[in-house]
Amino acid sequence: MKQPKTLSQKSSSSSESKVPAIGKESVAWHKKYGGKLGTYSKVPLKDAHDYSLAYTPGVAQVSLELARDPKLASVLSLKKNSLAVISDGSKVLGLGNLGAYGAIPVMEGKCVLFKELGSIDAFPICIQTQDVDEIISIIRNISPVFGAINLEDIKAPNCFKVEAALQDLGIPVFHDDQHGTAIVTYAALLNAARVAKKPFSSLRVCINGAGAAGNAITKMLLGKGLPASAPRVKEVIICDSKGIIHSGRADLDMDKRELAALTNPKGKKGVLADAIQGMDAFIGVSVANQVSEAMVRSMADRAIVLAMANPTPEIMPDAAKRGGAFVVGTGRSDYPNQVNNALAFPGIFRGAMDAGATHITPHMELAAAQALAGMVSNPTPEKILPALSDRRVAEVVAAAVRAAVKK
Amino acid sequence: MKQPKTLSQKSSSSSESKVPAIGKESVAWHKKYGGKLGTYSKVPLKDAHDYSLAYTPGVAQVSLELARDPKLASVLSLKKNSLAVISDGSKVLGLGNLGAYGAIPVMEGKCVLFKELGSIDAFPICIQTQDVDEIISIIRNISPVFGAINLEDIKAPNCFKVEAALQDLGIPVFHDDQHGTAIVTYAALLNAARVAKKPFSSLRVCINGAGAAGNAITKMLLGKGLPASAPRVKEVIICDSKGIIHSGRADLDMDKRELAALTNPKGKKGVLADAIQGMDAFIGVSVANQVSEAMVRSMADRAIVLAMANPTPEIMPDAAKRGGAFVVGTGRSDYPNQVNNALAFPGIFRGAMDAGATHITPHMELAAAQALAGMVSNPTPEKILPALSDRRVAEVVAAAVRAAVKK
Repeated sequence: MKQPKTLSQKSSSSSESKVPAIGKESVAWHKKYGGKLGTYSKVPLKDAHDYSLAYTPGVAQVSLELARDPKLASVLSLKKNSLAVISDGSKVLGLGNLGAYGAIPVMEGKCVLFKELGSIDAFPICIQTQDVDEIISIIRNISPVFGAINLEDIKAPNCFKVEAALQDLGIPVFHDDQHGTAIVTYAALLNAARVAKKPFSSLRVCINGAGAAGNAITKMLLGKGLPASAPRVKEVIICDSKGIIHSGRADLDMDKRELAALTNPKGKKGVLADAIQGMDAFIGVSVANQVSEAMVRSMADRAIVLAMANPTPEIMPDAAKRGGAFVVGTGRSDYPNQVNNALAFPGIFRGAMDAGATHITPHMELAAAQALAGMVSNPTPEKILPALSDRRVAEVVAAAVRAAVKK
Repeated sequence: MKQPKTLSQKSSSSSESKVPAIGKESVAWHKKYGGKLGTYSKVPLKDAHDYSLAYTPGVAQVSLELARDPKLASVLSLKKNSLAVISDGSKVLGLGNLGAYGAIPVMEGKCVLFKELGSIDAFPICIQTQDVDEIISIIRNISPVFGAINLEDIKAPNCFKVEAALQDLGIPVFHDDQHGTAIVTYAALLNAARVAKKPFSSLRVCINGAGAAGNAITKMLLGKGLPASAPRVKEVIICDSKGIIHSGRADLDMDKRELAALTNPKGKKGVLADAIQGMDAFIGVSVANQVSEAMVRSMADRAIVLAMANPTPEIMPDAAKRGGAFVVGTGRSDYPNQVNNALAFPGIFRGAMDAGATHITPHMELAAAQALAGMVSNPTPEKILPALSDRRVAEVVAAAVRAAVKK
């Protein structure tokens, strides 16, 4: 998006001075520990008898049982609690196509969060091909040891195809960049609306970024697939890198044509600066430095700004505040209101796996979002969501998801 | 192989009464623990700053570094110490083609041994296809997160093709059923020869089973690829399920024609009972109950019997002793002289990974075998190898392998 040069330089210099510092520290920290994820034995191996049980000859009988009935893998093997975080590295954070190696630190980081927050034994798989049919075939072929699959940082529209093709695996297959982001954004907006004293159903929302996350957020905010009683916003306008999506554009693929049909009822045209004018909420799931102070100033009173591009938001929180934003959130740990998928994915998968669910449904997603919002009984501009480090979050979300599976 | 009915019934009833007991206990044990392998975070995650380092925003810089130079994965990610144990389930233990699910308990068991014995973070991958080109492509595509690959329980000749095709990955790719078995067998035979007071170079050896293991054992015992100074046996005769392999047979594939050229210098023909007559050592890498007491009785004095079929050996140790065997080993934990790959693979990979080796060479394999044999300074008929539960083994083997890499 176009924006005044001086502003861009200012906000980028403020963010760049911050990112390299934490980035440099993170590189040294990764080196010190030699990566982040390890494996361990859940069983005792103290004598020859234990070895006879874990390995030959005892294990032969376990193998025969699983060959006879593969469903027993969820009872007798790691499949009971294991999850793959899988990426092709085609869209890593907001950094772009970094490939399989560039994806490793993010997928590994996600795995340690899965374990710490959700007690799930997660393992990263980074795939070197970016051919969608090959990705589908590889995941299908390596799925036996996994009890769930979290797809991550796969570019649109491939992510939609991969997720859809694997729904018959008998285990939850969930693209977190879509649904995880939608769940946490929905929860954040529920509480931000309370803080701003605006009914959720009156909100007019501008979204920037029409990839995996923007697509899923739009659908969830508008209540697509949710029960009739679910809260939904009044209106969404969504922009991609070429500006406002409207049905008159000739350059839209199938997924964006679907978005055009769902959003922008008045058929507004133009760039992000046009779309954001007068809106109650801005949701950024795009890249760094897309929004200026002046653009925030053009929004409605008590504006809500959730600028979630990682690692650098669409606008830094201090600039958004200067522009008059009332509630500001980002995807980062180092500012208030971290609107980060990590609030959702550990509990969603924990709940789904506990319940033996084979899919993660919109009902389960709504239950997760409402449980998450419900954890902050008195939201304030500085606290619309529980902290990532709050160890209760995953269990509260998991309980809501388990209950939603039973329905 | 043909054998008297009464004897077959006898030895099989003795073994069957044993296997189900330990098998039943193992199934209950697997259920109790919910599988054997878990993952954990190697890094502290105690506050928001730690999350900033492990995940966004800090991790972005680590991803950028790896995208720029994938070699840094071995310094900054789990690749530094991670290993995949990969099978297609086409030949699980001595049980046959159990498929990907049937393979899980064995691969998972191997992973916990890797961790307990070699401090390697191993993870099992069980592949649903048994098409050799697909297997190669899948492993290549998922290799980025792994610092080494242990191929396991893949049927011959596919195992040879898969291993050969992946030698360009830049990490050790090693089919343990071939080389791990050969290393431990070579070590066992070095010490068994001392116990039997026969020079290693005078040994005449009968091998039953001409698949992955039999192939690699034959080559290693005959010194193929090893330095000229390496100890080698006098003669090998090898049998497959159709009998003695000799160059006159019309039914041999390429791999077995190679074995025919290396072995059986006198061109002996017949079945296993013919092959074993007068031999100093029997090495079984086939299936249960192939050898009778009478067949052992037909061997040379102070015969060595290493009956390594899993979970049930070619002949049970008590029967082999009754047939006059002087030294008896099996693959199992519940008898003396466990000739099991677990004595080799943790140390081999530990050493190779410590040294940053990109391949595991015959020199490294010889060093491992000699180090293993050297751990028992005064071998006896009941102790030709260190115990699987001896925690020094992997480090002694690893040290020898590291030294061999440097050469």
